[in-house]
Amino acid sequence: MDNFIYHNYTKIVFGKDQETNVGALTAELGKKVLLHYGGGSIKQSGLYARVVSSLQEAGVAFVELGGALPNPRLSLVRAGIDLCRREGVDAILAVGGGSAIDSAKAIALGVPFEGDIWDLFTKKATSNHVLPVGVVLTIPAAGSESSIVSVVTNEETQTKIGLHHPNFRPQFAILNPELCFTLPPDQIANGVCDMLAHVMERYFTNTPGVDFSDRLCEGAMRSMLALGPKVLENPTDYDTWANLMWAGCVAHGDILGVGRVGDWASHRTGHHFSAYYDLPHGTALSILFPAWIKYVYRENLPLFVQWAQRVFDVDLTTADPDAIVLEGVRRLEAFYKRIGLATRFSEVGIDDTHFEAFATRSIPVGALKALSVEDIVAIYRLAL
Amino acid sequence: MDNFIYHNYTKIVFGKDQETNVGALTAELGKKVLLHYGGGSIKQSGLYARVVSSLQEAGVAFVELGGALPNPRLSLVRAGIDLCRREGVDAILAVGGGSAIDSAKAIALGVPFEGDIWDLFTKKATSNHVLPVGVVLTIPAAGSESSIVSVVTNEETQTKIGLHHPNFRPQFAILNPELCFTLPPDQIANGVCDMLAHVMERYFTNTPGVDFSDRLCEGAMRSMLALGPKVLENPTDYDTWANLMWAGCVAHGDILGVGRVGDWASHRTGHHFSAYYDLPHGTALSILFPAWIKYVYRENLPLFVQWAQRVFDVDLTTADPDAIVLEGVRRLEAFYKRIGLATRFSEVGIDDTHFEAFATRSIPVGALKALSVEDIVAIYRLAL
Repeated sequence: MDNFIYHNYTKIVFGKDQETNVGALTAELGKKVLLHYGGGSIKQSGLYARVVSSLQEAGVAFVELGGALPNPRLSLVRAGIDLCRREGVDAILAVGGGSAIDSAKAIALGVPFEGDIWDLFTKKATSNHVLPVGVVLTIPAAGSESSIVSVVTNEETQTKIGLHHPNFRPQFAILNPELCFTLPPDQIANGVCDMLAHVMERYFTNTPGVDFSDRLCEGAMRSMLALGPKVLENPTDYDTWANLMWAGCVAHGDILGVGRVGDWASHRTGHHFSAYYDLPHGTALSILFPAWIKYVYRENLPLFVQWAQRVFDVDLTTADPDAIVLEGVRRLEAFYKRIGLATRFSEVGIDDTHFEAFATRSIPVGALKALSVEDIVAIYRLAL
Repeated sequence: MDNFIYHNYTKIVFGKDQETNVGALTAELGKKVLLHYGGGSIKQSGLYARVVSSLQEAGVAFVELGGALPNPRLSLVRAGIDLCRREGVDAILAVGGGSAIDSAKAIALGVPFEGDIWDLFTKKATSNHVLPVGVVLTIPAAGSESSIVSVVTNEETQTKIGLHHPNFRPQFAILNPELCFTLPPDQIANGVCDMLAHVMERYFTNTPGVDFSDRLCEGAMRSMLALGPKVLENPTDYDTWANLMWAGCVAHGDILGVGRVGDWASHRTGHHFSAYYDLPHGTALSILFPAWIKYVYRENLPLFVQWAQRVFDVDLTTADPDAIVLEGVRRLEAFYKRIGLATRFSEVGIDDTHFEAFATRSIPVGALKALSVEDIVAIYRLAL
């Protein structure tokens, strides 16, 4: 097991009606906040009105900025930074899913930074100061509500970059499972896929001697495999949503991944498809993760065998470990299909036109196996 | 799943040589600290000298108080409070196991409180202000390094009370698995038993719809069952200790128990034996937990069946669920015996003399099943 520092200070406020506490919680973060959200759904659902009323009751002044889209845009982040500076905002409240939260984190980092925010994402510059962020979560998937990551797309260069920053964790996150009842099935499926991928990216490692977090990850994966189809069948079942929402938060909060080096190649080689084709992040993962496993599993055969056995109950003869792993992959693909996701690029109308370019843009990538451009193209081709 | 607030802000600094950072970490907590520890083992091992040197390098002034014993004493807590007030101490650094940490937490609560600290433990009074606490952990077991609990024994009244306080979590905890290499086997075994019990107390619940944390708890239990004997066989294996040390921290940090009501009857009905006979806390649990399960399992038969199947791989016919649970209990007892722990009071020379008195002192207790005095005596008798 590797040395690590784990400091997840996000206060999780979980359960029915908890968004009524948002005013009091936000008042602890600042005097004037940016209320940041996505499209109009929070207005239609009445959530926007409840949040505004709670902020007003708590005497929190706010300005607002909507329009955060899936694969959140750098241009909106820049607009948010300008607005916050102009208005003297000292904290950000994100109401929405991963896009609104990631966008809010980037704004929070950009406001006190004198240079260009994109230089921080491209690692040309660094800055420690991040305005405090609070969250009301409406789409459980990205796990951004307690993670150290923000993923932003520069639409001019069609580049999608995930920045890790120790001060990116929100100060609080309100998770009310009832807010998920009205999510459309495709968003649910993509979200489930993203959560599961957050566990698999951490699980597939070459770090030896990590039995305890192996077991936690395996438990989390098994639970998600059961919860995903269940929530699609009955999207207004409170307990199913509660478990799935909490699973998504734990999956990316890092307790499952400390002391081990995660891989993240499936995420990073997939981001280009989201940036260029606007492919949902979850679908990039359901297409690429099985192909990645097929391509790399011999790098750590015992771990992939353990995964197939413990997570998918594959009980083929141990004399043929390859068959065990490939049966595990088959069951993973069957799971994706069951929840309605594509497992091949051809299903979503993507051909090999940009494979070489995207692969070139991806490297260096991969920890379980460091991938070359040729490796990545080969994985893309396996997923055609 | 129940509503919950989860806020575990303890910064975990994990790995080889991490105690060399204690000075810098402590300097963030206060200007003058109480260095609180147990017996002389930290002096013999050289840890004391390393901690003192790190504090001095960081310019942190300190006074010290040793002598924290297993089942930490109220008298020492009171002495610590007096010392801190006299010396103008503004933070506490605990170096040791659960006893030193629990004692440090009680001192940290007592210093700014004007009344008697025991009134806070007996709930006659409340106080929110707790001095910041830092930890260098030497015995992984109690999980106190990131928990909200402090358990203190009033030796005058032979009463052992665990107080839950949201501000009891230490600000930082340094976990270096190498510090565990010299622990005696009986302390290791009792520690493993305590960790496992911290998961079981959370797992056995009547809260419906908690599938995700069921799976996390089951993974944690399976891992501990494997790690316990392994660490006893090879107590200087770094990775085994690293997994076990981290498991003990996660087990009581609460991420496994949020949204579900834990039971805690085995802990609370066992504390009296530790307070009166100085029975190790882990041994009170290895004796009482199997008896408790045998007595209560019909209150939530499906959960106990799931536990026996998923944690102990019991694959008896589902037509006889009682047999499945009882086989699970038999395997739990076999595990305790394998690591050298007693599973009956008679093995440690305790008879039924004080059963009635201890049972009377225990109530109200139990969430999965609220236990009467008669119930508790019956459980004690099952464990004779």
